[in-house]
Amino acid sequence: MGAQLESAIRSRSRIHRLRLLLSGIRADAVLVSHLPNIQYLCGFTGSSGLLLIQESRGTLFTDSRYTFQARQEVSGVKVQITKKGLLASVGESLRNRRGRASVAYSPAQLTVGQMDALQAASGKRVRWVKAPNAVESLRAVKDAGELAAMEDAALLISDVFVSVVPLIRPGISELKLSAAIEYGMKERGATGASFETIVASGSRSAWAHARPTAKLLRKNELVVLDQGAILRGYCSDMTRTVFVGRATSRVRRMYGAVLEAQQAAKDAIRPGVTAGSVDAAARQVLKRYGLAGKFTHSTGHGLGLEVHEMPRLGHGEATVLQQGMVLTVEPGVYLEGFGGIRIEDDIVVTSKDAQDLTTASREFLEL
Amino acid sequence: MGAQLESAIRSRSRIHRLRLLLSGIRADAVLVSHLPNIQYLCGFTGSSGLLLIQESRGTLFTDSRYTFQARQEVSGVKVQITKKGLLASVGESLRNRRGRASVAYSPAQLTVGQMDALQAASGKRVRWVKAPNAVESLRAVKDAGELAAMEDAALLISDVFVSVVPLIRPGISELKLSAAIEYGMKERGATGASFETIVASGSRSAWAHARPTAKLLRKNELVVLDQGAILRGYCSDMTRTVFVGRATSRVRRMYGAVLEAQQAAKDAIRPGVTAGSVDAAARQVLKRYGLAGKFTHSTGHGLGLEVHEMPRLGHGEATVLQQGMVLTVEPGVYLEGFGGIRIEDDIVVTSKDAQDLTTASREFLEL
Repeated sequence: MGAQLESAIRSRSRIHRLRLLLSGIRADAVLVSHLPNIQYLCGFTGSSGLLLIQESRGTLFTDSRYTFQARQEVSGVKVQITKKGLLASVGESLRNRRGRASVAYSPAQLTVGQMDALQAASGKRVRWVKAPNAVESLRAVKDAGELAAMEDAALLISDVFVSVVPLIRPGISELKLSAAIEYGMKERGATGASFETIVASGSRSAWAHARPTAKLLRKNELVVLDQGAILRGYCSDMTRTVFVGRATSRVRRMYGAVLEAQQAAKDAIRPGVTAGSVDAAARQVLKRYGLAGKFTHSTGHGLGLEVHEMPRLGHGEATVLQQGMVLTVEPGVYLEGFGGIRIEDDIVVTSKDAQDLTTASREFLEL
Repeated sequence: MGAQLESAIRSRSRIHRLRLLLSGIRADAVLVSHLPNIQYLCGFTGSSGLLLIQESRGTLFTDSRYTFQARQEVSGVKVQITKKGLLASVGESLRNRRGRASVAYSPAQLTVGQMDALQAASGKRVRWVKAPNAVESLRAVKDAGELAAMEDAALLISDVFVSVVPLIRPGISELKLSAAIEYGMKERGATGASFETIVASGSRSAWAHARPTAKLLRKNELVVLDQGAILRGYCSDMTRTVFVGRATSRVRRMYGAVLEAQQAAKDAIRPGVTAGSVDAAARQVLKRYGLAGKFTHSTGHGLGLEVHEMPRLGHGEATVLQQGMVLTVEPGVYLEGFGGIRIEDDIVVTSKDAQDLTTASREFLEL
């Protein structure tokens, strides 16, 4: 079967599943505005697009910058190049339908201003119906092709990390180290980083989302390295924390606690459990070490075309895990003025447990 | 004067100007939701925040991941770390005011879902008033400190481009070249790329927004390189198009036309003219060469904390240019199956003309 035909079948099957999912709200049409959702449904990777699904027909609206690209990438739906702005064109297309129509959309992915423009263009016979997270919930469970890409993206980032370990020495700057990591990704075929690579050393490692700076690594510092690559459209996301020099027993104990928390979370994962129960498993371990108050974020998140997807492994989250979900598991502890430790892997939910996709050793590295 | 005090004064002055700008709509408060606007007003660079300005007091709402970072970065406003979600906390803070209140917000920067949550949390005594582009219009005109950063960011990217020219040879992949460019940015102190670096060769250069692929450069191909770096928070954005081998007279003529169009646009820039007139100047030149139909995007855009800012140098745009605006000037022509040519510089509007910030030679390079 040709790749073109295969993509068209995949697009149509995903659009079909979306319509089944939304059949309860009896919408005549669905407007998809979030770009990764559009990519998922029809393959388009440009930065400007709206996908309107009416009954079984889909139309991708984009502008003239993407004429050639859309022709090459898009399958399963029609492409309409518009000169007058995407919102106006979608509105007009709806206005030209016969009779009244109700159109489902995701309220988290249209701004108030965009909705104003759509309503003005589509007229009063169109009723807009909120349908949050429909495409996202399809995307949460990956198919075989997606899993293959994600496995490769995870192996790639593991390999990059291992390759930069020899550079982690006193005197190299956080920025230079992050540049080497991102270069390593592209050298191995990644199309980019899935987020701005984090290299945070010393007391800056206590910032859970620090950006790399010109600060040089020094002896006796913790270094948090959080990195991810995009390969064939899919993201990886892995964190390792290392020590420059010989760590104190306090640091080693903290590292051990975080690793134990991570393993507890992984052990809690299987189809049928809630996302919240996985978070609780990690938190419970850190509580035993008196570190629960220093774990200031959730245990993990879904991963796929985007680096943050459904579900969130957070406190009390009721989402039930399913086979084929890909998640990060990344507990961390952060002590202001002292430093932070985070260990993060990507896992896939199998029929019975969690299987690691990222492979770099989790042993505590003293460099 | 200490840096801390200086930042606090800058924050307060910017917030004061925002309130002056919005005085016509008599709002009791302003909610700022777009992260670069928040950064502009109070210095915060985290990825989760809402800034609520009530009378003369500002409060940044963020979550516990950013406790340390906010303490270090934010000046001129209070910081409130919230556990219950930013929208709920902002809503509650408004609900606790006495009497009715009207709150200005930017409809392009709050989703329908966020507005639903804000309205639910703030209650019926709060009236939400649309005030588009207020902070953006302040940001369009840069102050001396911003211009210094932007000049450095532009010099940096010019220098990076010059340094990779020797790598542009048959056999190197688009991805590897883009990796070398991004490495060069970070090596020179950039905190990141202002957008995913574009390296598009051969017929792919006709995609105005192509992503780099594993495709190898070949002899007798056009290569479009579009790159920008972030330095001290500010973006640069520069494109050069080169030829691998000896170009035909057709290619040289096209290159000359684009360069002439770019110069015409630059020559048209001074305080008091409209953005649309600059776009028209470039388009007129390409029309003379019979290439107007191949110029499929606008002539340029504002540049600053974000890579796309106000104003847009597009057809019919009425925005009047002012001294201190920083703009890209980037006409291009794209012939499907053949290739594309774009030449882009960053310029600052001075009291009388446009001054280039990017410095790499615009001479046609045959490599």
